[in-house]
Amino acid sequence: MYSLTVRDHIMIAHSFKGAIFGPAQQLHGATFVVDAEFRRPTLSEDGLVVDIGQAADLLKRVLAPLNYRNLDEVPELTGRNTTTEFLAGHIHRRLSDAIRAGALGPDGQQLASLKISLHESHTAWAAFEASVAGEVA
Amino acid sequence: MYSLTVRDHIMIAHSFKGAIFGPAQQLHGATFVVDAEFRRPTLSEDGLVVDIGQAADLLKRVLAPLNYRNLDEVPELTGRNTTTEFLAGHIHRRLSDAIRAGALGPDGQQLASLKISLHESHTAWAAFEASVAGEVA
Amino acid sequence: MYSLTVRDHIMIAHSFKGAIFGPAQQLHGATFVVDAEFRRPTLSEDGLVVDIGQAADLLKRVLAPLNYRNLDEVPELTGRNTTTEFLAGHIHRRLSDAIRAGALGPDGQQLASLKISLHESHTAWAAFEASVAGEVA
Amino acid sequence: MYSLTVRDHIMIAHSFKGAIFGPAQQLHGATFVVDAEFRRPTLSEDGLVVDIGQAADLLKRVLAPLNYRNLDEVPELTGRNTTTEFLAGHIHRRLSDAIRAGALGPDGQQLASLKISLHESHTAWAAFEASVAGEVA
Amino acid sequence: MYSLTVRDHIMIAHSFKGAIFGPAQQLHGATFVVDAEFRRPTLSEDGLVVDIGQAADLLKRVLAPLNYRNLDEVPELTGRNTTTEFLAGHIHRRLSDAIRAGALGPDGQQLASLKISLHESHTAWAAFEASVAGEVA
Amino acid sequence: MYSLTVRDHIMIAHSFKGAIFGPAQQLHGATFVVDAEFRRPTLSEDGLVVDIGQAADLLKRVLAPLNYRNLDEVPELTGRNTTTEFLAGHIHRRLSDAIRAGALGPDGQQLASLKISLHESHTAWAAFEASVAGEVA
Repeated sequence: MYSLTVRDHIMIAHSFKGAIFGPAQQLHGATFVVDAEFRRPTLSEDGLVVDIGQAADLLKRVLAPLNYRNLDEVPELTGRNTTTEFLAGHIHRRLSDAIRAGALGPDGQQLASLKISLHESHTAWAAFEASVAGEVA
Repeated sequence: MYSLTVRDHIMIAHSFKGAIFGPAQQLHGATFVVDAEFRRPTLSEDGLVVDIGQAADLLKRVLAPLNYRNLDEVPELTGRNTTTEFLAGHIHRRLSDAIRAGALGPDGQQLASLKISLHESHTAWAAFEASVAGEVA
Repeated sequence: MYSLTVRDHIMIAHSFKGAIFGPAQQLHGATFVVDAEFRRPTLSEDGLVVDIGQAADLLKRVLAPLNYRNLDEVPELTGRNTTTEFLAGHIHRRLSDAIRAGALGPDGQQLASLKISLHESHTAWAAFEASVAGEVA
Repeated sequence: MYSLTVRDHIMIAHSFKGAIFGPAQQLHGATFVVDAEFRRPTLSEDGLVVDIGQAADLLKRVLAPLNYRNLDEVPELTGRNTTTEFLAGHIHRRLSDAIRAGALGPDGQQLASLKISLHESHTAWAAFEASVAGEVA
Repeated sequence: MYSLTVRDHIMIAHSFKGAIFGPAQQLHGATFVVDAEFRRPTLSEDGLVVDIGQAADLLKRVLAPLNYRNLDEVPELTGRNTTTEFLAGHIHRRLSDAIRAGALGPDGQQLASLKISLHESHTAWAAFEASVAGEVA
Repeated sequence: MYSLTVRDHIMIAHSFKGAIFGPAQQLHGATFVVDAEFRRPTLSEDGLVVDIGQAADLLKRVLAPLNYRNLDEVPELTGRNTTTEFLAGHIHRRLSDAIRAGALGPDGQQLASLKISLHESHTAWAAFEASVAGEVA
């Protein structure tokens, strides 16, 4: 399996609901360094998984509605605990929607799967990996 | 598949037996930066793979009997070459035992697999991945 | 000059005032990976700059009032733009106060200077370096 | 599954053919930090995936014909776009050839798969993973 | 002293002249991950060393004439060995010229010094630090 | 000031004497990732601080007597607490001795200072910086 990964980041505020979260129930925030890994069994005629410039632009576009925001007030996230792993899944769904809609051209239709990783610090990170159709292997 | 990873480290002495190990047959040591990756196909109602605080505490607890030790003198490791890959497997077994015994609560019972990675330097690392029951995919 | 550095992190929310900040005027947040570098021209009889365990504990203690907080609501920061560089200076002042008050024992009194670095992402970081008395070299 | 990974790097010049590559159609270059991950379900009697010294030496040997070269002039790569993902596949094939020919001894014959990752910058990397026989899982 | 650092990168081809360079006399290339550290004894009224967005944009603008190029054919570098340390100095001069010409506004005039670091691999990097007027402390 | 840095590593066992060291009084060990930073106000005619190949070879040679050893049994270190900061100073002295003896040729005689950094984990490191004659600035 071939893969290509691009990295970007977002800086957000949020709070969690539930005693299990302890002090993270307070409004706080995070830098999430976000890696998007595109996976495909064979390369295009150009020798590519997907175009790296298009991939980086798409990731930035998908992250934009979250960046510099308080996630507690983002309508589509209302009532959710926006944990690192949940956000990995959320970004996966948004990026997959865009890929299925053609955002990465024909190469995007050849992707076997997509993995989104979010690093919340130097000691913790989370990820979600599934096909662009949302199927978990 | 969702995953959550937490990082800790240990500082140990050891030596290896066998000509293949060259100078590493001498008593030397290592810092192992240890990553524990917990994997699960769906999130809990709280939006979690497992609780990150509990996961970090459990990893530290499992590493404690190895930390600041000469592994050549740790009874349960006697007669073994405590290579980086062997230790990844050993820590996997200890962490899995604790999870099966309930150390991560009900969420721990939902884990599909666990991956333990040990970084021995900026140029080498090793890992072991299997289910919490020890089955290799 | 000898130095010893320990690393920790905080996860905070905040917003900035001033058109220069663009979208960062909105409530957002950051993970700051914080490095505290202690500098001293000679070592103690034990061969230390300062005790690494005490240094790590002190850093965690100084960071605690900021961690998991909305800095816009922390009284001592009211009305300040809590930029990465400002926070480096703020943490330097709190850590220096504690060191002058004896938090690192006699070794702390031997420090020539202290540098606090805050990494806000994989592409940006800031720092403040001065003597424990606050003098910039 | 057990794995062992070793890291090395190469510094090369190249250019790409095709409008999709934009400015990268010009002769430019890259440092590729190369990770070779060897995977195996059980360890050898010595407690190894493969010997780390042999693995590092073999990786260096496989990279040598590419290092400090203009890839546009390396005969075996003529007419190919030597993208990061293509090179990951190319190095995989060369390393696999050597392993099948015995370069890592009997342990090399026990490998389930091999993953080659090339980091081209702090924000992008690519990889190819397959069995030593070239089968993609 | 306060500092703010931003990171970017370039991908270039080049060759060196002189037997001391061994195989690097051949046309090869590098990714240089470039850090620009801006240093200033006090912060602006906004709490800044310089505006981070302006700083990142300026660094990208200064790097543009080098990016995706064969440095052997860049007129202003003709006849020079574009070693990592030389390039750190070259980028320092270009960035300093722009800052003195007002590219970072009034805050740029308050800078005590500027440090440019270029990482050529995971095992080697170089830097040049001087005032914006070019004076080495 | 120009600088060039090369990275290597050692894997050692040791123990400390003194109650302040707590569990580190037991025989344990560490991987030290070692950075040697060579500093010089102007470049050589070749455009170099020092030759990077010679620098890397010299660092490896200086580290060799420590690598894969129990430092408690290395005669020249007997009776010393081989803390991370102490070892940074020790390696600085050995490297400086070699440079003064000509190990880096004429370029080595032009060095203003040398900084040795030892990373003991992802959360702690230490350094010693002085002139090649041992003078602390």
